[in-house]
Parts: sequence; C-alpha cells; structure tokens
Amino acid sequence: MSIELLSASIVGDVVQIAWQDGRTMVFPAIWLRDNCRCPACRHANGQRLFEITDLPRDLAVKQAAIQDGHLQLVWAPDDHISAFTASWLVAHELGSDSRATRREQPVFWDRSLIDRLPVADWSALRADTAVEVGWLDQYAAYGFGLLRNVPTEPGMVEVVGNHLGFVRVTNYGSLFDVISVPKPNNLAFTAVGLGVHSDNPYREPTPGVQLLHCLESDAPGGDTLLVDGFHAAEILRREDPAGFKLLTQLPLNFRFRDAKADLQAEAPLIKLDFDGAVKEIHFNNRSADTLNAPVDLVAPWYAAYRKFADILKRPEMELIFKLGAGDLVVMMNERALHGRTAFDPSLGRRHLQGCYIDKDGIESRHRVLRRQLGLSKDLAA
Amino acid sequence: MSIELLSASIVGDVVQIAWQDGRTMVFPAIWLRDNCRCPACRHANGQRLFEITDLPRDLAVKQAAIQDGHLQLVWAPDDHISAFTASWLVAHELGSDSRATRREQPVFWDRSLIDRLPVADWSALRADTAVEVGWLDQYAAYGFGLLRNVPTEPGMVEVVGNHLGFVRVTNYGSLFDVISVPKPNNLAFTAVGLGVHSDNPYREPTPGVQLLHCLESDAPGGDTLLVDGFHAAEILRREDPAGFKLLTQLPLNFRFRDAKADLQAEAPLIKLDFDGAVKEIHFNNRSADTLNAPVDLVAPWYAAYRKFADILKRPEMELIFKLGAGDLVVMMNERALHGRTAFDPSLGRRHLQGCYIDKDGIESRHRVLRRQLGLSKDLAA
Repeated sequence: MSIELLSASIVGDVVQIAWQDGRTMVFPAIWLRDNCRCPACRHANGQRLFEITDLPRDLAVKQAAIQDGHLQLVWAPDDHISAFTASWLVAHELGSDSRATRREQPVFWDRSLIDRLPVADWSALRADTAVEVGWLDQYAAYGFGLLRNVPTEPGMVEVVGNHLGFVRVTNYGSLFDVISVPKPNNLAFTAVGLGVHSDNPYREPTPGVQLLHCLESDAPGGDTLLVDGFHAAEILRREDPAGFKLLTQLPLNFRFRDAKADLQAEAPLIKLDFDGAVKEIHFNNRSADTLNAPVDLVAPWYAAYRKFADILKRPEMELIFKLGAGDLVVMMNERALHGRTAFDPSLGRRHLQGCYIDKDGIESRHRVLRRQLGLSKDLAA
Repeated sequence: MSIELLSASIVGDVVQIAWQDGRTMVFPAIWLRDNCRCPACRHANGQRLFEITDLPRDLAVKQAAIQDGHLQLVWAPDDHISAFTASWLVAHELGSDSRATRREQPVFWDRSLIDRLPVADWSALRADTAVEVGWLDQYAAYGFGLLRNVPTEPGMVEVVGNHLGFVRVTNYGSLFDVISVPKPNNLAFTAVGLGVHSDNPYREPTPGVQLLHCLESDAPGGDTLLVDGFHAAEILRREDPAGFKLLTQLPLNFRFRDAKADLQAEAPLIKLDFDGAVKEIHFNNRSADTLNAPVDLVAPWYAAYRKFADILKRPEMELIFKLGAGDLVVMMNERALHGRTAFDPSLGRRHLQGCYIDKDGIESRHRVLRRQLGLSKDLAA
C-alpha cells in the first residue's frame, strides 16, 4: 500500500480522488459521511453513533483535500470534518473490479482431492494457532475439513463444535447418534445407503455447519461420500443455464415430522448471493416435500433438478473415503454435500456422533485467529 | 372438503382433474410421481425413499381414473400405481390463487395495538395448551408477544426460551444482560436511547427470535419501542416503489468486533421471499458497515434508506410501553424492530436479560400444539 493520494475534488454529489500512480476513484458524498471514522461518529468499538435520520437533509461536501496523506472532507451545513486513510479507501473502493476481487472465492474440488485432503491432527490444532489457522483456511476454501485423532469418547463432537464455534441445539438435542436403531424416526438412523445431501433443509435457519465424529467403524461399507455442491452448481450453470436459473428461482418445500416436531421451510435448490455467486445448496430427496410453483414451470424445473442430481452422481465428482475411529469431518452443510454407502450392521458396528454449529461462530474464530497471527488483510476497524 | 372428484384425464404431460362443482385442476405428471404417497415411495415418517435419479427417464402416465373418491394413476414404463386423496390435491393445488391463499399473512400493526397487546400469563400458558396456542397464534400474526408474571429470577429468560424453542448460544453466551456497565463492548449496554433496530445482523444466520425479560425497572425512561418492520416496508413499497426495490436488492455489510469476536455478514435492508412478500428486515445503524454497491446506485440507495428510516420513526408507527418487572417480550427479530428511550441509571435500576432462539423451534412447537388441539389445517402427512 505504498501508493499515495495525490488530489481530491468535488464533482456534483461525489468525491473524486486521484492517486500518484494515475488511478482515480469515485465515492458518493452520502456514503463517505455515513462511513465517517471520527470519534463523534463511531464508538471506539467501531459501532456507529448516529442514525441516518440524524444527518442534515441538505448535506454536501464543502471542501475536499489531501492532508497528511489522508482524504479530508469538510461538510456543509454542519462543518463536520471527516478523514479517511488511503488504505481504508483502497479497501472499500466501489469499482466493480475491486468489489469482485474482495470476495472470497471457493476452491472447487472433486474426486481427485483424495490425495490432498484438508486435514489436521486435533491435538496439534489445539496446541498451535498456526496449525488451526492453516486448517481453517482450507475449510474456508474447500467447505470442509478433517480432524484426526479426536478421542473416541461420546460427546467429543460437541467439545470440538464448541471449540470451533457454538453448538446449535435442536429437537435432536445438542448432538445426535448416527447408528442403526430399531425404530428410526429418520432414515439416517438405518443402515441404508444415502445419496449426497445437505442436512435439515426443513429448518429455518438451515444448519450452517455439520460435524460428524466417527467413534466406531468396523462394519463393511459405510464409506463417506462428499461432493462439492458449489462445483456441481457451476457445472449445471455452464451446461444448462436456463435450468440452473430455474433451480435458483423456485422454492422447494422441505418438511420433517415426528411425534414432537413439525418442521417446514422453503428454499431454492441453489441459492445465489447478490452478485450471482452460488451461496447455498439445499438438496435432500428424503425431506423434499412439494414444489409449490406455477404449473408451467414444474416440468422444466424437474428436468433441471434431474440434471443437477445427475451431475452430483458423476463418479469424478464423488470424493470417497472411510472415516476411521477418531476421525471427525467438519462440513459447510450448504456446500459440501455428504452421503454414505450402505453398510451391514450384522457384520460390524458403525457409530458416528454429529452436531451442528452456526456459520458465524467458526468464521469469527477464523478472523480472530488470523488477526492474532498478523495475517488479517483487514485494514479497517 | 365435501366436494368430490369427478373425472381425470391425461393431457400431454399433465393430469387434468375435474370436480363435481365444475372446477378443474392441472398437475404435471412428474410432480405427481415425485409426490407419490405409497409405502414404497414414502417411509411411514413421511420421508421420500427414492431419489429423483431413480425414476424412469421415459416416465409417463398410462392411465388416470377416479377410484373410491381418489385420483389413481398407473405409470409407464414401470406399472407403478399412485393414489392421491381429494383433500391432498386441494391442499397442494398449483394454481396461483390457491398458492397465494395458502401463505400465512402477517397482520400489520402500529401504535394503536397498545389497546390489544398480544399477551399471556406465563403460568396460564404453561398450564393450558389452548392458552399457549392462542398466544402463539398472535405471535405468528403480529411477530411478537408478551408474557406476564415470569418470575424475576436471573436465567428465567433461558427457561422460557427453551420452553418455546431452543436457545442459541453465541459469543454473548446463552443469555446476555442489558444493563449499564462500566466499559461496554456494545452500546446496548449503556443508558443511551436506541432507535428501533433488529439485533445482530452481523451474524449468519441472523438471530431469528429474541426474548427480553425485565428483572428490574425503576429508572425513569427506558420505555420499550416496537415497530412493525413489515408494515413499514409495505408503506415504503407503496410510497416509493423504486427505493423499496433498491433496498431489497443491494446488500449492506454489517459488522461487530471486540477482543474475542469478529462477526461479518451482508444482507439487504429488506429481504423478500419468492413471491415478493417481505420476509426479513435487517436494520441496525450501529453495526451497519459499508454499502458495497455499484457507485451509481449508492446515492439512490441512501435516499431510500432515509425514507425507510423516516417511516420507522413516524409516531403512529411506534408502539410504546414500559416493561415492568416480570414482563418478557418475544420478538421475531427480523420483523418486530425494537428500541428504547434513554434512561437515567442514577435514579433507578433497569435490568433486562435477553436470549435468542431459532425460528424453527418455536414454529415447530406451534404446529405440534395445534395438531394436539385438532386445529391444524394441514391435511397431508
């Protein structure tokens, strides 16, 4: 960030700044005032101290200049003064290229990731922040990560969940056992194979992150399948743009009922963010209820749904590995779709424990640890 | 539901049914097959037993008829048989009118609701399911509800939260105290007035439901303000359609930082569902960070933001009441925006405890209790 500010000028209701390397940037006046960093406008903790309705209705920039390397503004009618550092301006530029490059990009993967699984040893991760940050970097990029040598004690999945973030309690409790049971209320608790899916799309909010901890794994079969749902969605977008669009637009109803719960939510199979990037996948054939859509869109939607399901089943998409006792996988539930091959419970035991954590807790921990290591790219408090 | 099915016919890839009252309905074949209710297709718990890729690619309806009052279909090429009851078909019709009337409609409110606050006694609610369902009906319609005579013991807010749903633990803990503290990490923990807002839009997911329990309330001031954010959004939609649209489209960054947390999320101020109905409001001047939008949309967005803030401040929109000791308010955080007037901590004490619960838990409880009372309109397991 050695580039320096050269000049500033007022052009209508925007401020234009020029840099020594010849670049220019434009910032709307109202945006600058609302983002004023001065102690009267922002509490030391970063919270804004005024409301939008507190600002003068006839607000305007009276004077714009470069002082001590900062952009300094004097406002009419209240003579308020705002200053912005060069690095803050660069970090918050509103040009479309800058905005695009600021977005974290997922790294797509497929079956070949088997040779470089994002993995860390649980004890090493706890002992060394650099190990944890490295693992979290991979988790953020791939949407999942593996931990090895997590003690095979019941309840450890909750300990790991509360280390990384905050465990979410639901009608399943704070953790759930994935094991064959006599009268299952959910197919997950049987021995049948399960195609890849996201968990509990019938919840609002959908669980953001799932942890599965393997306590026992002697039964033949029961391999874990993982598919990068974001990658699959991008393939669909390329191969069938109209179908992709339908899956992002029409909501599907999801539902789960038992004696104690009646959970319903609607979500599109593919949810985009404001820039059109894939943000969430909701895919679960077991709990999908009815598509509640205009009649003429139903058959085209189903054609796209089948195409997307076909892509998810392509052998090159499927990352297959067997969780051994002590392995724990942490998955972004709306990206890293998971399933399992069938197993024979008469020939051995298979016992996993799972829990959910919210997305914000683990993301916050990742940022705080990066800050501690001086790795944060964030320039602005 | 005394109307009876008259006839069924296959028209291309849809099934058309006629009712004795002259109405007709159309259902796409693939949709009907995917929703087949037979025991081979659905587990007793309602979960689907097949994947979309398991269905024949050349699927077609071979035969459609009314039998014993049901729609019965025979499929090619696999001779599978599906049956649908009349009530199920009515409940899931895909015509736009039917789809619209199935949606739960919020009941908008304003200052005048003071005369008929949605309120229940905590002991009465626990003792009588009908009281609880009546209160939950009002909570669902208005987006908030009051409970009276909740024992003024610290931690009771968590007890109530776990009665209604499941408490969400965050970096604030499972509950938080709203009380003047010496070195606050958040302006909520001071004595200043707070304009109406939604809590923690910097989280992903945003807290769905907030509970605030008043333990002490002797300080002058500190009245509670509630504004129906959905109502305000509809007013904006009517008065400034273009501005409304901008607020639904552009995401705003929200952020909270302290020594232990760094929370960031983006959300539009007004979020719509797939049918264009207002679904969520994210409004918090303190934690709003930068608007990350194309330059030319920034000034128009700010104009709309100010208009929306103006509407939220209209006196007729503000429901104002003072929480007394033992009162507890349960609010849909993304609808019933809350604030408070300033108070003077030197003249008395004001102590609230709050917690968050997820939306799905309380909604599920509402459905299950309605089912228990035989009030459920849901016809289809």
